[in-house]
Amino acid sequence: MDEMFETVVENIKELLHEKKWAKLKDILEDMNEQDIAELFMELEERELTFIYRLLPKELAAEVFVNMEPEYQEALIRAFSDSELREVLDELYVDDAVDIIEEMPATLVKRILQHTDPEMRKSINEILRYPEDSAGSIMTTEYVDLKRNMTVSDAFTRIRRTGVDKETIYTCYVTDSKRKLKGVVTAKDLLLSDENDLIRDIMESNVISVSTVEDKEVVADIFQKYDFLALPVVDGEERLVGIVTVDDAIDVLQEEATEDIEKMAAITPTDKPYLKMGAVETWKKRFPWLLILMVSATFTGKIIQHFESALQAYVILTSFIPMLMDTGGNCGGQASVTIIRGLSLGDIEFKDIFKVIWKEFRVALLCGITLAVANFAKMMIIDRVNITVAAVVCMTLVCTIIVAKIIGCTLPIFAKAIKLDPAVMASPFITTIVDALSLLVYFTIAGFTLKL
Amino acid sequence: MDEMFETVVENIKELLHEKKWAKLKDILEDMNEQDIAELFMELEERELTFIYRLLPKELAAEVFVNMEPEYQEALIRAFSDSELREVLDELYVDDAVDIIEEMPATLVKRILQHTDPEMRKSINEILRYPEDSAGSIMTTEYVDLKRNMTVSDAFTRIRRTGVDKETIYTCYVTDSKRKLKGVVTAKDLLLSDENDLIRDIMESNVISVSTVEDKEVVADIFQKYDFLALPVVDGEERLVGIVTVDDAIDVLQEEATEDIEKMAAITPTDKPYLKMGAVETWKKRFPWLLILMVSATFTGKIIQHFESALQAYVILTSFIPMLMDTGGNCGGQASVTIIRGLSLGDIEFKDIFKVIWKEFRVALLCGITLAVANFAKMMIIDRVNITVAAVVCMTLVCTIIVAKIIGCTLPIFAKAIKLDPAVMASPFITTIVDALSLLVYFTIAGFTLKL
Repeated sequence: MDEMFETVVENIKELLHEKKWAKLKDILEDMNEQDIAELFMELEERELTFIYRLLPKELAAEVFVNMEPEYQEALIRAFSDSELREVLDELYVDDAVDIIEEMPATLVKRILQHTDPEMRKSINEILRYPEDSAGSIMTTEYVDLKRNMTVSDAFTRIRRTGVDKETIYTCYVTDSKRKLKGVVTAKDLLLSDENDLIRDIMESNVISVSTVEDKEVVADIFQKYDFLALPVVDGEERLVGIVTVDDAIDVLQEEATEDIEKMAAITPTDKPYLKMGAVETWKKRFPWLLILMVSATFTGKIIQHFESALQAYVILTSFIPMLMDTGGNCGGQASVTIIRGLSLGDIEFKDIFKVIWKEFRVALLCGITLAVANFAKMMIIDRVNITVAAVVCMTLVCTIIVAKIIGCTLPIFAKAIKLDPAVMASPFITTIVDALSLLVYFTIAGFTLKL
Repeated sequence: MDEMFETVVENIKELLHEKKWAKLKDILEDMNEQDIAELFMELEERELTFIYRLLPKELAAEVFVNMEPEYQEALIRAFSDSELREVLDELYVDDAVDIIEEMPATLVKRILQHTDPEMRKSINEILRYPEDSAGSIMTTEYVDLKRNMTVSDAFTRIRRTGVDKETIYTCYVTDSKRKLKGVVTAKDLLLSDENDLIRDIMESNVISVSTVEDKEVVADIFQKYDFLALPVVDGEERLVGIVTVDDAIDVLQEEATEDIEKMAAITPTDKPYLKMGAVETWKKRFPWLLILMVSATFTGKIIQHFESALQAYVILTSFIPMLMDTGGNCGGQASVTIIRGLSLGDIEFKDIFKVIWKEFRVALLCGITLAVANFAKMMIIDRVNITVAAVVCMTLVCTIIVAKIIGCTLPIFAKAIKLDPAVMASPFITTIVDALSLLVYFTIAGFTLKL
């Protein structure tokens, strides 16, 4: 796949240099817009602005939408006013908003100057919604129908306005005050008699979201109900836009990425890794490292406290990393499983006792398995004193139980007090479990070895 | 939302006990099938089998599809043969396959006995495809058109057969040998003249996948191209089925969950957390813990090796947890970011030097920040010897650089040799970095403190 792509890029560059425009045009017109966009982003800026003009109008706009902001910027700078207007005319409102959000202020001004007044109004409206809200990801281009239309009226309307709509497969029925009254799918329309009234075939029980709803909630609704589009209403239940499934997929992916980043103690960002500078990346990472580092010094304090015990039994020191790592890993397994379960809706607060009971049993099983393995290893390979082996293995079982219980409860409590459970993942759990495992270790060692 | 749901459940139970069937029916008919399914799963088995029969035929089947396997099983056992046939008649093939895969063998036999022969053939076909392949998640119910049909012929065909198709919004054009020749969307059809020929309006450059393609690749195609459906072809390019966007979303979510589980050193599973027994959960977790525990003992060996140095400077022991944790966290941040980037396609093997150079700079920045903070803390709060503080802080910088470089390179190398990069996350990186950080620590301490 990758090699094939390289070949196509080489091929296109050659045709460009040989000035074979007709051939180039033929090849491009047969390609998917997403593939063309990827191809174009491999070209020099000079080549890009040139080859872009070979595309037919509609395809050109589709390719434009699929390019990274830096290439869009280069193209806009190269466009004449009429070229710019042509591209903007073909864009959907939500795509235009996405582009504008990434452009420098001077270009934004130029873009808004060349969009038609109605679209400019819609763009400005969407730009006003809070970041991460349903309003900020919706489009205002939907098909709206009235209750007293017939199916054939509806088709006429779709044929007349549909070309500019983001989807025509879900149509929305509104009253004279623009209040949302029902939905009709294109499938319903196609399978109904052409004289049927919309009011009779529409589904009046509509699931909708408010403009200020969190976009993650929107994405979860898509996943739960398998919708292709979801209506967005304002405070007075008036329809203001729709979110389509392709945007919901992007949100679901972003959400998963954010969760993963938080679990690794990184402040989430929506920028791709390679687009972020080192300083920006550093800013997302060091605050957490600092907090965790300071917390980890408590673990050091515990060791310092038991200094004399350690000097008597230096061998005990060498098992500290194994105990700490295993505790961290066990806690991490439990917390990450619970965090994902919470975020997918599989686990709720009311399940907390079920979860703890289950993790306790899993911990007991894991603890015994690891302790047996470790005891065998310590006796056969390390050939340590049997009492030392017993101390380490007892600590192991206790640490694993403590780690799993803490790992499963902290995310649930975090969620209950409206904190993000994803923060309660391995790094934090590890820091807590480290300290506890050492306390357990020295306590058991103190009793058993009479330190 | 949750409280509202509880109220509805209570309400429904009351109506059930008061035997107010008409009222119950009215309420249910206005609800979404997914919501009804969730509601039904809160009821006793006896209540469930009773209330289920109040649903109209089509809604009943939709609700059935949305329930968990254990409830589906209970219902199937309660169904008479004709009831079973009624539900099966309404199912899409891919949903029927999903249900069959979860049922015990005796029920599967009964189900297949009551499906019509054509559907039985399709079910058996899909069941034969390898797990996780495109074939295993596709449906065979699509609209197929011929090149010489007119748009109005196409509408006639859609009206006649569309009710049983999983989607009518993307139609597939095949030749007499069932080879895939093009796609036409319902939008194209609606916006074309009714005498236009399909061959003239169809898109002949079709992106399709083979039946044996990995379902993750299928999901990635949906994400990249924003499709609503994707055709699946056999070895001879014949169309055998389609995958729809709702199934692709499920795969994307499963994929993210799997990655997260692997990152936490858990063998992935597609069962929800609460449905898995403790023993099953233990089996997914302990092998990794065991491997990591054994690896961690190497770190212990290093400490043992430097026993005498530690006895001379016991204070050095108390900084081991902080150094190990910070190394693990830094490595985890880098590896998790790279793993996600690889899985989203943002990062490729060819970017490896860019990645290393960036992580090196980030590590330097993080290292200096943390070292400065730590030095201040050690001098002001811990009041240790300045040489000891210097040793710890130099180790910190080196450890962070080593951790970030290892964290970013291992996942990329894993991918290059076709291993799963997600396994190279925090737990493994931590184990490696632990050992290295101690080596650095004792080396620097050896030189500086002349141990």
